Amino acid sequence: MPRFKMTLEYDGTSFVGWQRQTTGLSVQQILEESIAKIDAPYVRTMAAGRTDAGVHALGQVVHADLKKNWDPFHLARGLNHFLRDYGVCVVHAEQVNDSFHARFSATRRSYVYKIINRPSFSPLNNMRMWHIPLPLDVASMIQASQHLMGTHDFSAFRAQECQAKSPIKTLEIIDIQNHHDTMDLFFYALSFLHHQVRNIVGTLAWVGLGKIHPDRMMDILVSKDRRMAGPTAPPWGLYFRQVEYERPQE
Amino acid sequence: MPRFKMTLEYDGTSFVGWQRQTTGLSVQQILEESIAKIDAPYVRTMAAGRTDAGVHALGQVVHADLKKNWDPFHLARGLNHFLRDYGVCVVHAEQVNDSFHARFSATRRSYVYKIINRPSFSPLNNMRMWHIPLPLDVASMIQASQHLMGTHDFSAFRAQECQAKSPIKTLEIIDIQNHHDTMDLFFYALSFLHHQVRNIVGTLAWVGLGKIHPDRMMDILVSKDRRMAGPTAPPWGLYFRQVEYERPQE
Repeated sequence: MPRFKMTLEYDGTSFVGWQRQTTGLSVQQILEESIAKIDAPYVRTMAAGRTDAGVHALGQVVHADLKKNWDPFHLARGLNHFLRDYGVCVVHAEQVNDSFHARFSATRRSYVYKIINRPSFSPLNNMRMWHIPLPLDVASMIQASQHLMGTHDFSAFRAQECQAKSPIKTLEIIDIQNHHDTMDLFFYALSFLHHQVRNIVGTLAWVGLGKIHPDRMMDILVSKDRRMAGPTAPPWGLYFRQVEYERPQE
Repeated sequence: MPRFKMTLEYDGTSFVGWQRQTTGLSVQQILEESIAKIDAPYVRTMAAGRTDAGVHALGQVVHADLKKNWDPFHLARGLNHFLRDYGVCVVHAEQVNDSFHARFSATRRSYVYKIINRPSFSPLNNMRMWHIPLPLDVASMIQASQHLMGTHDFSAFRAQECQAKSPIKTLEIIDIQNHHDTMDLFFYALSFLHHQVRNIVGTLAWVGLGKIHPDRMMDILVSKDRRMAGPTAPPWGLYFRQVEYERPQE
C-alpha cells in the first residue's frame, strides 16, 4: 500500500468544502470516488486542512495509501480525467514514506485572501475575490495587522464551531500587498483556528473602512471576545495556498 | 443628447462577441437593452474594438448618446444593476464632448494574452487562460517576438475574414512577462487586424514548444502567407485591456 502525497488546486464555489458532508458534494468525496475508479474502492484521503464551503485551494495537500504502485505522473493524469469536470485538479503527485502525514507532518500553512476594492464589481473575478466598493485605507490595515503577528489567544477571531483544543496560535506573518484596485493578504502559520483568516480579514476591512481604529486591534485581541471583532469575510476571497513540510519527506 | 464614454469589463465566455449577431447574445445587445431600461430605447453604442466570441475585456471603451443628463456614477450603477447577471460591468463612465469617438479617437489599444504552462490544467483559471501542458522556452518566444515589432505587412497573422483595408500595422510593443507557471503577453498598437494577436500568440507558442526556430519568425512575416504561421490561439486567453485617447477629450 504505497503512500502518495497529492497537491490539489480547486475552485471551491460549488463544494460544501473539503470534508465529506451529507448536505452536498465535497472535494474529498470527488477525490475518493476518482481514486475508486482507477485504483481501489474505499480509499480514505487525509488533507492538510479542511477548507470551508466556497473556499478555494491553490495547494491543498492530501495523502492516501493506494493499492497500485503508480508512476506519480500517471496517477495525476488518471485522477484528473475524472476531476476536471468538477473544478478539481491534482497539480502534483509523488510517492512518500509511510511516516508522511498530510496534516500532522505539516510545518507551515499559508492562505491568501483576495479583495477587489473599487466602486463596481468585477465580472472576471466573480466568486474569486471579495468586492468592497468603498475605498480602503491600506496603510491603516497594515498598521492594524502588526498587532496580530506572533503568539496570541485568538479567541476574538475564532468561529463558535471551532474544534481546536487551544485558541492560542502563532501567526508568523501577515503580508498585505496592494496593486491598483486589488489587495492580496497573505497569512503564514503552523496552523489556524476555524474562520481565523476570514475573521481577521473582516476586521481588517472594517479598519480599512475607518470603522475601527488600527490600534484598537490590540484591544480586540486581548478581549478574546468574538463580538468585539469585525464580520467574517466571505469564503470566495480565500485560497488555501501552500503547505510546507520538512525535507526530506522520505 | 449628451455623449457618454463608458469603460467595460466583461467575461466573454458566454457571448458571441462584442457585436450584435443573429446567432446569439452579444455584449452590445446586453448593453443597449440595459440602456433602454434606464434611458431611452434604440440607443446605439459604438465600441473601440470588436472582441470575438469568448474574448474577455478589462477595458473595452464604448460611447453612446443618451437622452438624460446623467451623473456618470449613477449611470454606471443603473446599468450595472442589469448587466451584473450577464458578467458585464461598467467600470467607469464620464460625459465627453460630441467630438469623442470610442473607435476613431483612440490613439493606442492594448491586449494581454494569458497562458498557463504546466502539466495539469488550472480549475481556478478555467476559461481565463490558455493551458499549454508542455514546457515553453520563454527566451525563444521573446527572441521571436522581437521580429514582429514595428511597421509590417501582417498578412501572415491575419484572419481570412479580416475587413481592414490594409494589412500594414505598426506593432509598438510585445512585452512577454513570465511568473512561475503563467505567462502574460502584452500587445500595444494603434489598431490590430482581425485575429492578429491570437495568430501571433499561436505562432509564438509553437516557437516556445520548439516547433519553429525563433528567427524563422522573420521569414513567416515576410511570406505574408497565413499558412506559414502557427495556429490561432484560443479566445479565452485573450483580454482587450485598455484603450488610450488623447487628452483633453473635452
